[in-house]
Amino acid sequence: MLNFDYSIPTKIFFGRNKIEVLAEQVKNYGSRVLLVYGGGSIKRSGLYGKIVDIFNKSEISFFELPGVEPNPRVTTVKKGVEICRENKIDIILAVGGGSTIDCAKVIAAGYYYDGDVWDIVVDPRKITKILPIATVLTLAATGSEMDAGAVITNLATSEKLGTGHKDMNPKFSILDPTYTFSVPANQTAAGTADIMSHIFEVYFSNTNSAFVQNRMAEALLKTCINYGKKAIDEPENYEARSNLMWTSSLAINGLLSYGKETEWSVHGMEHELSAFYDITHGVGLAILTPHWMEYALNDKTLNKFVEYGVNVWGLDASGDKYEIAHSAIKKTREFFVTLGIPSTLKEIGIGEEKLEKMANQATVRGNLGSFKPLEAEDVLNIYKASL
Amino acid sequence: MLNFDYSIPTKIFFGRNKIEVLAEQVKNYGSRVLLVYGGGSIKRSGLYGKIVDIFNKSEISFFELPGVEPNPRVTTVKKGVEICRENKIDIILAVGGGSTIDCAKVIAAGYYYDGDVWDIVVDPRKITKILPIATVLTLAATGSEMDAGAVITNLATSEKLGTGHKDMNPKFSILDPTYTFSVPANQTAAGTADIMSHIFEVYFSNTNSAFVQNRMAEALLKTCINYGKKAIDEPENYEARSNLMWTSSLAINGLLSYGKETEWSVHGMEHELSAFYDITHGVGLAILTPHWMEYALNDKTLNKFVEYGVNVWGLDASGDKYEIAHSAIKKTREFFVTLGIPSTLKEIGIGEEKLEKMANQATVRGNLGSFKPLEAEDVLNIYKASL
Repeated sequence: MLNFDYSIPTKIFFGRNKIEVLAEQVKNYGSRVLLVYGGGSIKRSGLYGKIVDIFNKSEISFFELPGVEPNPRVTTVKKGVEICRENKIDIILAVGGGSTIDCAKVIAAGYYYDGDVWDIVVDPRKITKILPIATVLTLAATGSEMDAGAVITNLATSEKLGTGHKDMNPKFSILDPTYTFSVPANQTAAGTADIMSHIFEVYFSNTNSAFVQNRMAEALLKTCINYGKKAIDEPENYEARSNLMWTSSLAINGLLSYGKETEWSVHGMEHELSAFYDITHGVGLAILTPHWMEYALNDKTLNKFVEYGVNVWGLDASGDKYEIAHSAIKKTREFFVTLGIPSTLKEIGIGEEKLEKMANQATVRGNLGSFKPLEAEDVLNIYKASL
Repeated sequence: MLNFDYSIPTKIFFGRNKIEVLAEQVKNYGSRVLLVYGGGSIKRSGLYGKIVDIFNKSEISFFELPGVEPNPRVTTVKKGVEICRENKIDIILAVGGGSTIDCAKVIAAGYYYDGDVWDIVVDPRKITKILPIATVLTLAATGSEMDAGAVITNLATSEKLGTGHKDMNPKFSILDPTYTFSVPANQTAAGTADIMSHIFEVYFSNTNSAFVQNRMAEALLKTCINYGKKAIDEPENYEARSNLMWTSSLAINGLLSYGKETEWSVHGMEHELSAFYDITHGVGLAILTPHWMEYALNDKTLNKFVEYGVNVWGLDASGDKYEIAHSAIKKTREFFVTLGIPSTLKEIGIGEEKLEKMANQATVRGNLGSFKPLEAEDVLNIYKASL
């Protein structure tokens, strides 16, 4: 196990009707709120109305930034920073999924940054101070509700980059699984794939000695496998929705990665797909993951894939090791198919044209990962295999 | 999954040489420290000298409360409160295992309480405010380094009671697994049994829908099973010591219990053994646990024991359910025996004399647990089976 410093300061209010704590919690930070959200779903579901009611009854003033995109744009971040500055905002409340939350996080950091806000995405070290942010989660996927990172897209430069800061964790997040009852099947599927990818990125690691982290990662993977399809088939199944929602937060809040060398290479590859084609993040991850696994499988990594097959998929440990590994990868691919996710890039409109450019850009900060380090050529091979 | 409010504010500095953060972290709270510790082991190991050096170099003044007992006494807490008041202490640093940390926690709460400090043990609602506390951990066992509870013994009344407060979490804890290299075999064994008991108390629950918590509990149990004996056989095995240390914190910091109805009945029964006989907590737990399991096994709880046997001990799921359950309990008992822990109360000097009195006292606050609710008579039966 590697040395680590653990700090997960976000408070979580989890369960039905937990929105009841909103006014009291907001008031710990002030009474002027920027409400950040995406499309109209929170209006259709009644959540927007509920929050407005709470604010009005509690003498909390609020300003709004609607229309955050699924891959949130730096232009939207800039708008948010302006609203905060003009209206002396005390706290930013993101209501939605990971995109909305990520956007809110970078607005909060941008508030204290004098230059072009894209700078603090490109170079997180330029982040110095952050407005308090909080979230009301409506989608189990990115885990942004409990972590200190954010991903922002710049369409002008076709870049999608991750940024973060140790103080970027939301102060509190309200997780009411019933808010995810109305999430459509394709988004539930993509969200589940996103959660699983976060776990894979830290599970497949060279740090074998992090036994307890590895077993916890398997626990979370089994949860996704147990409930992903169920949440699609029975959208109002509270047990499924609550387990997926809590797993989305635990998957990336640090619990699984503290003490380990981590990978993040599939995310690195996928960010280019989203940057160039504006596709759904979780779909890109689900398509790439089995191909990355096949590419990463070798004599050095074999035992880890066997561990995965036996502990997560219940495969017989006494079989041939390579057979177990291939079978585990096959099961992974099949699982994503049962969720209704496309399994090739072509199905989502991505052809060969930009693969080389994307492969180069994916590795512009250096090789991806360390479990199986990927150069541009490796990334290109994986993209091609995924066509 | 039940509703819950999650807050785990303790910062953890984990790994070799993490003591290097001590001065900087202490100074976030002030420069006057009460150093609380137990016997001479931290002097023999050199840790005491290292801390004194750090304080001297950093102009941190410190006062000392040595001699905290293995089952910390309320009389020692009182001494600590007096030292804090006389010397205007800013922060209490507990260096040791759970007993030392628990003692420091109640000193920190007692500092702000005007009456007899035993009152705030008997009735935690009387705790209003708490001095900052921090810990340097030297034993993987109680998890007190990352939770908000404490257990204190009153020998005058033969009572051992738990107390706690939402702000009682240490501000930070330094977990260097090498500090546990010198822990003797019997304490390593008792510590491992204590960790496992914390997990059992939340794992065996009526809340079956808390799937992700249940799978994480199994992950932690497997870690204890994988490394308990190894840490005894190879006391300087860093992998074993680090996994056990981190598991001790995760087992009881809330991660496994949030969202669940929990049990705590074996702890309730064991506290009476320690209160009347001053025995090692983990040894009492290990003796009682398999007998509690047999007593709790019935048609209603059967599936949970099967889940335990299959997922934790790898038993064949296709067998007879009661056979799986009994076999899982047998494996639990045998595991404690491989750690060298006595398996009967008689071996540790406890006879029939006080069993009835202890059973009555164990249930004085009401029945124990809800998975299998225990009245005084049930507790007595379990004590007798454990003789």
